Amino acid sequence: MVEKLKGNMLIAQSGGPTVVINQSLVGAILEAKKHNEIKGIYGSLNGIKGVMEERLIDLKKELLPTLKKVATTPCAALGSVRKKPTEQDCEVIFNMLQKYDIRYFFYIGGNDSAETANIINENAKKVNYDFRCFHIPKTIDNDLLENDHTPGYGSAARFVAMAVMGDNLDNISLPGVKIDVIMGRHAGFLVAASALARVNEGDGPHLIYFPEKPFSKEQFLKDVEDVYAKYGRCLVTVSEGIADENGEAIAAKFTKEVDTHGNVQLSGTGILGDILADIIRQELKISRVRADTFGYLQRSFPALSSEVDAKEAYEVGKLAVKYAISGKIDSGSVSIKRKAGKKYYVYYEPVPLEKVAKNTRSMPAEFINEKGNDVTGKFIDYAEPLVGKLPEIGVLKKYPVKKVST
Amino acid sequence: MVEKLKGNMLIAQSGGPTVVINQSLVGAILEAKKHNEIKGIYGSLNGIKGVMEERLIDLKKELLPTLKKVATTPCAALGSVRKKPTEQDCEVIFNMLQKYDIRYFFYIGGNDSAETANIINENAKKVNYDFRCFHIPKTIDNDLLENDHTPGYGSAARFVAMAVMGDNLDNISLPGVKIDVIMGRHAGFLVAASALARVNEGDGPHLIYFPEKPFSKEQFLKDVEDVYAKYGRCLVTVSEGIADENGEAIAAKFTKEVDTHGNVQLSGTGILGDILADIIRQELKISRVRADTFGYLQRSFPALSSEVDAKEAYEVGKLAVKYAISGKIDSGSVSIKRKAGKKYYVYYEPVPLEKVAKNTRSMPAEFINEKGNDVTGKFIDYAEPLVGKLPEIGVLKKYPVKKVST
Repeated sequence: MVEKLKGNMLIAQSGGPTVVINQSLVGAILEAKKHNEIKGIYGSLNGIKGVMEERLIDLKKELLPTLKKVATTPCAALGSVRKKPTEQDCEVIFNMLQKYDIRYFFYIGGNDSAETANIINENAKKVNYDFRCFHIPKTIDNDLLENDHTPGYGSAARFVAMAVMGDNLDNISLPGVKIDVIMGRHAGFLVAASALARVNEGDGPHLIYFPEKPFSKEQFLKDVEDVYAKYGRCLVTVSEGIADENGEAIAAKFTKEVDTHGNVQLSGTGILGDILADIIRQELKISRVRADTFGYLQRSFPALSSEVDAKEAYEVGKLAVKYAISGKIDSGSVSIKRKAGKKYYVYYEPVPLEKVAKNTRSMPAEFINEKGNDVTGKFIDYAEPLVGKLPEIGVLKKYPVKKVST
Repeated sequence: MVEKLKGNMLIAQSGGPTVVINQSLVGAILEAKKHNEIKGIYGSLNGIKGVMEERLIDLKKELLPTLKKVATTPCAALGSVRKKPTEQDCEVIFNMLQKYDIRYFFYIGGNDSAETANIINENAKKVNYDFRCFHIPKTIDNDLLENDHTPGYGSAARFVAMAVMGDNLDNISLPGVKIDVIMGRHAGFLVAASALARVNEGDGPHLIYFPEKPFSKEQFLKDVEDVYAKYGRCLVTVSEGIADENGEAIAAKFTKEVDTHGNVQLSGTGILGDILADIIRQELKISRVRADTFGYLQRSFPALSSEVDAKEAYEVGKLAVKYAISGKIDSGSVSIKRKAGKKYYVYYEPVPLEKVAKNTRSMPAEFINEKGNDVTGKFIDYAEPLVGKLPEIGVLKKYPVKKVST
């Protein structure tokens, strides 16, 4: 039998919020409560920043009804942070972990957070501190390696699909060119989900642009012109992360702010949509051109989560604790794998932290069409079960009235 | 007994869509089906443009299940239009009405649409054409005269309140200054609805700016600085229509496009939010400043309509037909009035077209606080029943862990 490690547990949340990130938190807390090895269940406010500043809360004292409500509430209940720890930070963090006898550490976040967990874990190893360190996956971008998909993605994708469903109807009502800018820094999974909005022949999005394919202004204008000629309208969805041939983000050319992970600010501004709208107005002489940037609503809108996503987010939180308690491995991330076959079926596996940290994955080539302006059927098959059933759309059959001759 | 007028009916939709505009359409169709006076039930595609171009459809042929699904589908099922008819247009329209023996005309829209209906009606009177002409109210801006509120507003307000609920949680997770730009050209009702997002002490929006109050950059900066000093974050909601002392829209200074009603384009661009974010970054030296513009999602997002709003939208469509059939009045608009008292109770009244056309109403002074940066309790009492129950938000109690001394 494996020797069980006893001590306190610390959990924290990091990076951009999702609407199911608290499912993972509550999944981990409720699982931890079942195990005697875990004494105190602490939460750190604002990720590792809260660890460094000694802002810890006692999660064992939270009542079950509170936890249940928190689970279905969007965004990080513990607060989040975007911070890559320096060598010095790691020392401070590590001292705190020892001071509070933290033996179980769980960090909910994306690949940057997996990297942070990995750094902390390496530090613990160096001094032979007996420690379990697990990353719990979360990102609406769906770009973690080793995963079929990531908690947070399904719900954000659901929001995008619903928003574009509505916007397509809006664009039918008042025809013109409409551009919707969708999150996803380097991976096009979220913008791709807009394709799920299509219900009837002729429905938008008519064109979808991904960060994975070099964005050419000329091709874009030609694409829009062709669709507009065919339908008298054109609905375009475009990733905030579209980049030119040299890999420079189209939006980045116009913004300057950079976070500590070296990422350029692409969200929280309408500039990309406005640039693209201006290009169409000027070059194609189409008068009604509009752009909307869906922004933070994609990761925070309440009461719309995908059922599958919520369930899986809870599960990865729960499993991280189970893996840690089992003692079979000291550290890792919980990955979601999908079984091949028609019926949607997932299973979970621990994977080494370093395999999830740092690098991200992109849309597989088979998910993007040859022209680079739409998804393939394979993507639809992939995404549908993650997003769940979408609202029904009613459309009039429009039987023409027989013309009266005068 | 009043002589009943026999002939065909024509219905059309106009102006910006809402998520309940088809409730009014279906309410009118199903009521019309009950009356023998109405022979054909025709729909015009894209408002009066479809009348002029003879693009009429036979709504009697649409099956009930289709109509029921259409009723709960956002945006104009008949297509919409933004067009103020010229003298010449009116002649064409009027010829068409006579040609198709249209005796009942219903136009679903805002004040511009009421004006259009009024012009058509005046033309009919001039030549003694026996004609019933009714306007069916619709606008997310909630700015029609003679109405307590307008169909479309409650659902758009519900979207805004939910979006800001989520965005407030996002802003708690990753603190900074966040600006949300909300629709409403001249009336602040929609931006005001963001106040319903507040659940707990300290929740945003912390500041709300209305088109009704002159926007001062200096006051804005001071307001944001104060909130940021208090909470370490600041969530601002601002109407797209905020204007300076001279009544010039802040956003309008940067855009040029004007529609045929003389309105400047304020929606479908992120420019206002980006301008305000830049001002804060530069003047207050706050690094994390973001802006989102909710855009067309407010009027088109599916499956989120307010129950009260959907019911009332159906009702005004139904009643317009009833008023027309009754023969007691030839023309008018259906207005929604509210009985004073604690319990929410509305009744409906026909009002003359010219009373709803052209002019719009603004937020009553008693709905805006003295500083012009928030709503009053009276507004909350007004808006709550229109929006309906909002999602529950779970928040951790955050019991601090006792600090360990070293």
